Amino acid sequence: MIVRPYQHWFRRLLGWHGSVLPKIGFRLSLNLVMSIVAIVCFQWYESLGVHLTTAPFSLLGVALAIFLGFRNNASYARFTEARTLWGSMLIAHRSLLRQVKSVPLDKAHAREFAGLQMAFSFSMKHQLRNSDAHEDLTRLLPPRWRDEVLSSPMPASRALLCLGKWLGEQRQRGKVSDILWQSMDENLNHLSQVLGGCERIASTPIPFAYSLILHRTVSLFCTLLPFALVSDLHGMTPLVSMFISYTFLALESVSEELEDPFGVEANDLPLNALCVSIERSLREMNDDFPLPPLPQPDGRRILT
Amino acid sequence: MIVRPYQHWFRRLLGWHGSVLPKIGFRLSLNLVMSIVAIVCFQWYESLGVHLTTAPFSLLGVALAIFLGFRNNASYARFTEARTLWGSMLIAHRSLLRQVKSVPLDKAHAREFAGLQMAFSFSMKHQLRNSDAHEDLTRLLPPRWRDEVLSSPMPASRALLCLGKWLGEQRQRGKVSDILWQSMDENLNHLSQVLGGCERIASTPIPFAYSLILHRTVSLFCTLLPFALVSDLHGMTPLVSMFISYTFLALESVSEELEDPFGVEANDLPLNALCVSIERSLREMNDDFPLPPLPQPDGRRILT
Amino acid sequence: MIVRPYQHWFRRLLGWHGSVLPKIGFRLSLNLVMSIVAIVCFQWYESLGVHLTTAPFSLLGVALAIFLGFRNNASYARFTEARTLWGSMLIAHRSLLRQVKSVPLDKAHAREFAGLQMAFSFSMKHQLRNSDAHEDLTRLLPPRWRDEVLSSPMPASRALLCLGKWLGEQRQRGKVSDILWQSMDENLNHLSQVLGGCERIASTPIPFAYSLILHRTVSLFCTLLPFALVSDLHGMTPLVSMFISYTFLALESVSEELEDPFGVEANDLPLNALCVSIERSLREMNDDFPLPPLPQPDGRRILT
Amino acid sequence: MIVRPYQHWFRRLLGWHGSVLPKIGFRLSLNLVMSIVAIVCFQWYESLGVHLTTAPFSLLGVALAIFLGFRNNASYARFTEARTLWGSMLIAHRSLLRQVKSVPLDKAHAREFAGLQMAFSFSMKHQLRNSDAHEDLTRLLPPRWRDEVLSSPMPASRALLCLGKWLGEQRQRGKVSDILWQSMDENLNHLSQVLGGCERIASTPIPFAYSLILHRTVSLFCTLLPFALVSDLHGMTPLVSMFISYTFLALESVSEELEDPFGVEANDLPLNALCVSIERSLREMNDDFPLPPLPQPDGRRILT
Amino acid sequence: MIVRPYQHWFRRLLGWHGSVLPKIGFRLSLNLVMSIVAIVCFQWYESLGVHLTTAPFSLLGVALAIFLGFRNNASYARFTEARTLWGSMLIAHRSLLRQVKSVPLDKAHAREFAGLQMAFSFSMKHQLRNSDAHEDLTRLLPPRWRDEVLSSPMPASRALLCLGKWLGEQRQRGKVSDILWQSMDENLNHLSQVLGGCERIASTPIPFAYSLILHRTVSLFCTLLPFALVSDLHGMTPLVSMFISYTFLALESVSEELEDPFGVEANDLPLNALCVSIERSLREMNDDFPLPPLPQPDGRRILT
Repeated sequence: MIVRPYQHWFRRLLGWHGSVLPKIGFRLSLNLVMSIVAIVCFQWYESLGVHLTTAPFSLLGVALAIFLGFRNNASYARFTEARTLWGSMLIAHRSLLRQVKSVPLDKAHAREFAGLQMAFSFSMKHQLRNSDAHEDLTRLLPPRWRDEVLSSPMPASRALLCLGKWLGEQRQRGKVSDILWQSMDENLNHLSQVLGGCERIASTPIPFAYSLILHRTVSLFCTLLPFALVSDLHGMTPLVSMFISYTFLALESVSEELEDPFGVEANDLPLNALCVSIERSLREMNDDFPLPPLPQPDGRRILT
Repeated sequence: MIVRPYQHWFRRLLGWHGSVLPKIGFRLSLNLVMSIVAIVCFQWYESLGVHLTTAPFSLLGVALAIFLGFRNNASYARFTEARTLWGSMLIAHRSLLRQVKSVPLDKAHAREFAGLQMAFSFSMKHQLRNSDAHEDLTRLLPPRWRDEVLSSPMPASRALLCLGKWLGEQRQRGKVSDILWQSMDENLNHLSQVLGGCERIASTPIPFAYSLILHRTVSLFCTLLPFALVSDLHGMTPLVSMFISYTFLALESVSEELEDPFGVEANDLPLNALCVSIERSLREMNDDFPLPPLPQPDGRRILT
Repeated sequence: MIVRPYQHWFRRLLGWHGSVLPKIGFRLSLNLVMSIVAIVCFQWYESLGVHLTTAPFSLLGVALAIFLGFRNNASYARFTEARTLWGSMLIAHRSLLRQVKSVPLDKAHAREFAGLQMAFSFSMKHQLRNSDAHEDLTRLLPPRWRDEVLSSPMPASRALLCLGKWLGEQRQRGKVSDILWQSMDENLNHLSQVLGGCERIASTPIPFAYSLILHRTVSLFCTLLPFALVSDLHGMTPLVSMFISYTFLALESVSEELEDPFGVEANDLPLNALCVSIERSLREMNDDFPLPPLPQPDGRRILT
Repeated sequence: MIVRPYQHWFRRLLGWHGSVLPKIGFRLSLNLVMSIVAIVCFQWYESLGVHLTTAPFSLLGVALAIFLGFRNNASYARFTEARTLWGSMLIAHRSLLRQVKSVPLDKAHAREFAGLQMAFSFSMKHQLRNSDAHEDLTRLLPPRWRDEVLSSPMPASRALLCLGKWLGEQRQRGKVSDILWQSMDENLNHLSQVLGGCERIASTPIPFAYSLILHRTVSLFCTLLPFALVSDLHGMTPLVSMFISYTFLALESVSEELEDPFGVEANDLPLNALCVSIERSLREMNDDFPLPPLPQPDGRRILT
Repeated sequence: MIVRPYQHWFRRLLGWHGSVLPKIGFRLSLNLVMSIVAIVCFQWYESLGVHLTTAPFSLLGVALAIFLGFRNNASYARFTEARTLWGSMLIAHRSLLRQVKSVPLDKAHAREFAGLQMAFSFSMKHQLRNSDAHEDLTRLLPPRWRDEVLSSPMPASRALLCLGKWLGEQRQRGKVSDILWQSMDENLNHLSQVLGGCERIASTPIPFAYSLILHRTVSLFCTLLPFALVSDLHGMTPLVSMFISYTFLALESVSEELEDPFGVEANDLPLNALCVSIERSLREMNDDFPLPPLPQPDGRRILT
């Protein structure tokens, strides 16, 4: 049940939401200007013996498409991995709580544990977006653990440590046998993998040289393109040149947006909605109603 | 033993079933109209100095093919992952029941457990397709767990929780040792991964900007193509233009269909048949005959 | 030590075995006919203003190559996954038997277990190829389990269940501790994954729309190609046209063969040889000599 | 929160940091010289009947782009795998310390263990970079293990062995039960995988024949290119030729840099910063303040 | 610290070691001959109305590059997987010995175990290369296990079985608890996966049809190429034709070499060096000095 801003093929042609046009608008306009310059000056610089043909640009365009395809794959793989990690977080949270609830503990204990779980997710979101976690953590953390997590410089890692301590205590109280401790600890390892994986994606961009090379070649390609097309297309140059430039610039722009999937742009991951759906799922398992409402896309149809 | 609507190469050329022609028919016709417009107006707009050549379209076409290839890969990877997740579900179900049956429990207990397993699968199907799970769940759920699962807003997640509770009870009754509990719980984790994985695929489309960019460039490309071909091909323009457009539009269309593999279109996953084959496999292991019949493809050779 | 029908580069040029020529022979001949038609009718239809040039076919050819590349990747991935699954089966079988043999059981017990293991592999082969498993199963199954497996509608899944029952019995007899049971059960899970994985590959082809679109475009492309080449190449048209067609048709044909890796064609998996090598390996570990001989390629150098 | 040397698209066009220009500068200048030679000698060698056209270079260029794309993928996969392995190290370290801290041990013991963990990471860094580990190891190693690790010819592997010995001792002292030992040992296995994985990447380059073939064809291609372009472009030859050469040479150069991700060049992994952030994370979990400061990029914006 | 035969870009242009030139030399010379034939006969066969142009060869060349790219990926994936499996072997060996050494056993026992481990690795090397394992096995095997392994038709699999027996004995002697047995057995499973994985790679080539099709099309392409180039390039035909042919033939040749990574050619895996480094690592962990020296590349800079 995938929901996209526009489902119909025709509305999609002209729709605005989710588009990268605002980002590349300036460079597209520049391309338009160059096209007009090319048409106007064509006669003059041809007479100077300076001229460009389509053939080398065709070769370059295909090579660029291949390299952009590579960059696209790399960026999309980061986006997909980040999403999969957040999906694993939900899975590990559910499995953990299922394991906790298969042990005869009273309800308050399970809710304390679930509170720490949610605090872990929300603090991870705030860490990845460099935003302030205080409000969410105060709301979610069980009183006993509040100070320890809030005062730590690495609240997500500390919340995980607290989950481990909670589990260790239950083991020492004899509520949880060694074997059960092991199964739950395994899921804490999964949470640790999610945290470490997201930190890795956030701190390690695609090697900067790739961005640099592609950015330069795509820009130069789009700038010179009108001069290569004008001898064949005359008046149609602006249309075709902008069309080709749009394809290349837009794909470069999406690649760059997806490279950092934890941002708050149109094509980034809706970390906020993911956190709330984790909260909903854990509360439902604890019969802890009412559930918080699912966030809805805003006016620009973006879910943060 | 792969069964396809048409096995022979010649019938496949002309066959209708499974084709995406109905979806792109309108746009292909539009292309035909544009081709005729191009032939008719060729003389007139050439005289205005407006003309298009094949060269830039060739460059663009290859670039588009590369980007479509990327989109295709991404969509097909989603389809494959979704299918693999459903395959893992069957595997985990079989392993779980094998483990349950290696413990000396009476038959009714194993069937109660299998009932919960089937309910999990069917409720997942209904959740992914947004359809009503009530009938299937009433049929499959053991009486003891019926109300709990049916009244939950997230029946699949709740059925999993009940499987965990069943297991926890057997552990507390001493029927299942801690170690056996651990091995079975591991398979419950697998079911949790399947549920979480499918929810992820269903809720996270390929970033919308890709669809948008490719949709626009493919559409514009097919619209302008006849005008670029007409100066070379004259009367053959409609044939070649529609041929090239078919390749691009059809591949874009399949990509889009596969992006959401849980739908009920020709190329989507037959979730219904998968659920029934899980039911058959679990019932067979419990000697719970007769088995329900396997669903057969309908008149349009589609299996839902 | 990879053995191929032809090792020398020159013999490989002209060799016959393993080739897909027989499958595409008819369509290649058709291409030859079309080339001759093109040469003969060239003057006539040129005079009617109908003509085709290489440029749009070049664009289409490259696009087709990219899409064929995608299809090839998908088919080859299925082939590789299927082979890897059968490899995992051998690994899991060996590990299981190693674990069984590290427990002080008498020889007959280990051989009974190995018998069930081999029966599992052979019944899987017959299930994937839709062939009759009765003979192999009668030969391999230990008497105690023969009836149960033979009478089941799903013998592979049932043989796995029997392996689980055998293990459960040893556990209840106190021969195998819970921990050892867990380690062996883990390997039974691996066998379950192999079975489920192969069933998935066998029952889920690449979405039919891909086959359809590629089949149609490749066929139409090869049919029209001579008419596009003839204006440039005249008498050389048949040679070049058949050469290009061979590349595309042959790759499409291999893709299709590999899509169903469990068949008995030249490029399919030698399931029979794989089963025998599993039997050999397990018998060797049990010192159960003489080992059955390894199957050898037949006259057409095909190993089934 | 990805930080790149230049965020704005325009500054990125002209920026210097992270660029591979210094490495390919000589070969680009050579290309400029060849372009001028081509322009100057064009009339003369044309008159000798020697001439080159764009068409074959276009074919070759696209083929080269495809092969460079392959090489790029392979190099980038090495870079990504290396980074993921270092990420797994942080994850395993955190999980290990969480497990150690869930056992009632006194603080000094946990810090001794963390000291060995950090020594493992730093010695791995020095091993991969062939630098001297003595200073870091002396600083980090707990006195009891210092001599054993420092005197070993393979300090990273030895530090891991010591972690295992520490754990074995706690098990024999009864502080850690067998089950807990197992969970921690599992994480030691992860550390072993990280060490082995990085050693594999460091010792096994991409098969040298690929570097050789691509290096030769790219170099020859760039050398001949001006002669092919000059007949069409005349005075524009140097610009277009250098532009195309830049794309190919720069991508070959980045590929080569990434192939060995453990170096100290601009696009290599910041192993030093990774080690410090592991140290910070472990110290924070042990409340062992103050934390060492995070390394900052140097004047050339490189983090080592 | 990747060491390549030539580090400097210029020496790499002309270097000989690691090159595939010797393998494709004959076919390249053939191409030279055909180029000369093309130049000489050009006038004559043009007058017969037989002529070839670059356009269809350009299309074919790009398609071939895409298919060669696919083949390259498949071959390189085999090479990488084989290397990763050998890397996993080192990791599993180290982890096993670390586990053995965390148990209070006397030194001789640990060395006996390590002896079996090394014998496993060396026998695997000899099995994959079809060479004689007798000498290495006699040197490495502890006396107690020598006969059993040496007399087996499958020494690698038998050495693994003996490792399992050794472990089972320690368990029955009470030296190793069930839980520790489980952790070590897990690593034996990893060794089993390495053995099975390498056997799979060695016994299953890439489907032969791919080799056949690519070999034929590449050969035919290179043969016809001079005739297509000659009308444009005249005297430059041999240079450009050999250049393009070199790219295609060389890549096909490397692909074929990498397809069987266990050989002893320049680009194959140095199994011998890998075995020795495993031996060194295990001996170092046992303080079993002096370590055997690391093998060095031979005169042709090849490490076997």
